[in-house]
Amino acid sequence: MPERDLPSAEIDRAARAGRGVVKHTPVTTSASLSERSGGQVVLKAENLQRTGSFKIRGAMSKLAALGTDAARGVTAGSAGNHAQALAFAARHAGVPCEIFVPAGASIAKMEACRAYGATIAEGGDTLDDAVVLAKARAADAGMAFCHPYDDLAIIAGQATIGRELISDVDELRRVVVPLGGGGLATGLAMAVKQYDPTIQVVGVQVRACAPYANQPIPGGPVVTLADGIAVKRPGELTRPLVERWLDDVVVVDENAVADAMVLLMERAKLYVEGAGAVGVAALLSGHVAAARHGATCVVLSGGNVDLGVVPGLIRRHETGAGRRLLLYVTISDRPGGLAALLTLFAQQGANLVVVDHVREGVALQVRETGVNVVLEVRGTDHADQVVRAVRAAGYHVERANRA
Amino acid sequence: MPERDLPSAEIDRAARAGRGVVKHTPVTTSASLSERSGGQVVLKAENLQRTGSFKIRGAMSKLAALGTDAARGVTAGSAGNHAQALAFAARHAGVPCEIFVPAGASIAKMEACRAYGATIAEGGDTLDDAVVLAKARAADAGMAFCHPYDDLAIIAGQATIGRELISDVDELRRVVVPLGGGGLATGLAMAVKQYDPTIQVVGVQVRACAPYANQPIPGGPVVTLADGIAVKRPGELTRPLVERWLDDVVVVDENAVADAMVLLMERAKLYVEGAGAVGVAALLSGHVAAARHGATCVVLSGGNVDLGVVPGLIRRHETGAGRRLLLYVTISDRPGGLAALLTLFAQQGANLVVVDHVREGVALQVRETGVNVVLEVRGTDHADQVVRAVRAAGYHVERANRA
Repeated sequence: MPERDLPSAEIDRAARAGRGVVKHTPVTTSASLSERSGGQVVLKAENLQRTGSFKIRGAMSKLAALGTDAARGVTAGSAGNHAQALAFAARHAGVPCEIFVPAGASIAKMEACRAYGATIAEGGDTLDDAVVLAKARAADAGMAFCHPYDDLAIIAGQATIGRELISDVDELRRVVVPLGGGGLATGLAMAVKQYDPTIQVVGVQVRACAPYANQPIPGGPVVTLADGIAVKRPGELTRPLVERWLDDVVVVDENAVADAMVLLMERAKLYVEGAGAVGVAALLSGHVAAARHGATCVVLSGGNVDLGVVPGLIRRHETGAGRRLLLYVTISDRPGGLAALLTLFAQQGANLVVVDHVREGVALQVRETGVNVVLEVRGTDHADQVVRAVRAAGYHVERANRA
Repeated sequence: MPERDLPSAEIDRAARAGRGVVKHTPVTTSASLSERSGGQVVLKAENLQRTGSFKIRGAMSKLAALGTDAARGVTAGSAGNHAQALAFAARHAGVPCEIFVPAGASIAKMEACRAYGATIAEGGDTLDDAVVLAKARAADAGMAFCHPYDDLAIIAGQATIGRELISDVDELRRVVVPLGGGGLATGLAMAVKQYDPTIQVVGVQVRACAPYANQPIPGGPVVTLADGIAVKRPGELTRPLVERWLDDVVVVDENAVADAMVLLMERAKLYVEGAGAVGVAALLSGHVAAARHGATCVVLSGGNVDLGVVPGLIRRHETGAGRRLLLYVTISDRPGGLAALLTLFAQQGANLVVVDHVREGVALQVRETGVNVVLEVRGTDHADQVVRAVRAAGYHVERANRA
């Protein structure tokens, strides 16, 4: 029984610790995901949580559990959501917070920690180095080192999300949850199974780093959209809990994560980070099925993603949807040559995104030049129509989209 | 009293009409907006509403009010949220729906209407033409023409959002709401003032089209991010209601709308269309103040914006935040010349976005070429550091960012 591994009184304590800070985030139905997956799918919008992710639940729980042991402050080695959450919780508790980040960490995330009053120390090349520094600093200064997941007080905090699902989702049968270190997935699983042991909980890892799915641990830095769950080493505490309480662990790839992020924006109107979107990726790619009866809840665990990532995702999506047409056209190299071609595009309702002259490495007649153009079109039919029109006007045209 | 213009029993009826379809959307606190505006700001996330906007409230109310008069179907002239909502409501009621759109309407929005089972007819050059066609078709076929806002059944539906605010927001003192045709703003205002006449309601228009703010009505097509509220003619019904029940009408410009959309994504993790973001734009630009005591609620009225709009907004934001550095550098036109420069950028942690050779119209020595580069940097300090490093390495470099 989950009660043995995580007493329900401990989840009660964590819930009290979060009062006034942790939001009871909304659950929203998703018609679009329900249709695509053939079941009733709801989304737990934990991206709307304070500090932008579920991590504040664990951090508030940990600070309360520490009590006076946190009087001299807390430290962490992290460049992400745990750091922001701990900084917020420490400020709320009125104690100092020092965050150790590896060199080259996201400026935006460091700024967020600073805005919550934390001190940031850059040092070491990897996250592991930063953790070592954070532990050493805690030992030296009588501060409390706070692990992001391998700590029962943290797990109890993350478990409070399970309580909210039980209260908000009718006929909950399955929960799909991102799985990184394991604090969220195991806490949530134990909380919902204390209420009903037949509710299934499926953890989702990203292919780039999936140790819980028994995949080899990558050497070197992990590059993935789901960096928030790219945890190489399962915890000593969380590893056996994942094995005991999760019904399944599945793995999604980068393309599925990118598709999920875009779908969540376009359809669900929610801005979700890669790690937060892996549950939707698992549903869309068929790695997890929606429950045949009752509700399937997908946890969107956070929304802290740099804006700079988004244009690339959208371009990729529009290209995939046939909304980008790349052409190579030869035109007259006289005044008005390009203008005539561009006027033709405009008449066809195609919007010019890029145009470049090409004069090297192509066969051209005298007084002729090549141009590469990128056009925004409405879809594949419209693209075909544009190409036909250009050809009908007498131009030599080649399609340049790559498969 | 609002009761005279919109009986509370009529709002009750509209609320019943929406049951099972209209979502009771969440209200979420915004620490970031609260800090910036110096008051307690909450967001009504109506972008999470079914069909992506509040319009479903009015459409469900209208279909129910029509009853058997809708048996032969409904028509509308619209290219936006009203069309999608009416299509959804008609399908729910089991009656046909025909939507008339002007030529060149958004493909994505037409597809959404078709997905809800509506018939789409393209015709006419303007929205006015489409409305004339929709009315004529209704008269010919015994169908019911549904106006997007100038209709008390529609207004009663939009008023249900006010009821939700009263039940969800403690100490509500002020509501900031997008103002287009006026259905949402007047319905909401009457609903909240029936409960407490001292709650202030401020309507927000966009500068490109602000007739309620007594600005001249633009000729020709209106180009604005907030196209959902670019309504040129106040309604016969809504005009006097706006005058009677709104405490103030303010106007925001395009840049404020763009900033608000990006802030909502980055901080609130919500994907909101331009028309839905004007309330936040009004707060950020200081056109509306947050209430000094109690809560100010900003209504995010919808989230139906084409993804293609987003990359431009983000680029603009990053440029404004100093995260785009444009340089003109002269380099050696020998093998390795550009490679050396790019290596230097990489060492400085600047990410190359664009590079182009420039050989025309610039003063160059023999065996020299110019390059334009766009770099992604962390901010203005980092930009300065990159420029210093390039100069220190002996390059001629000019900054090319325009004010």
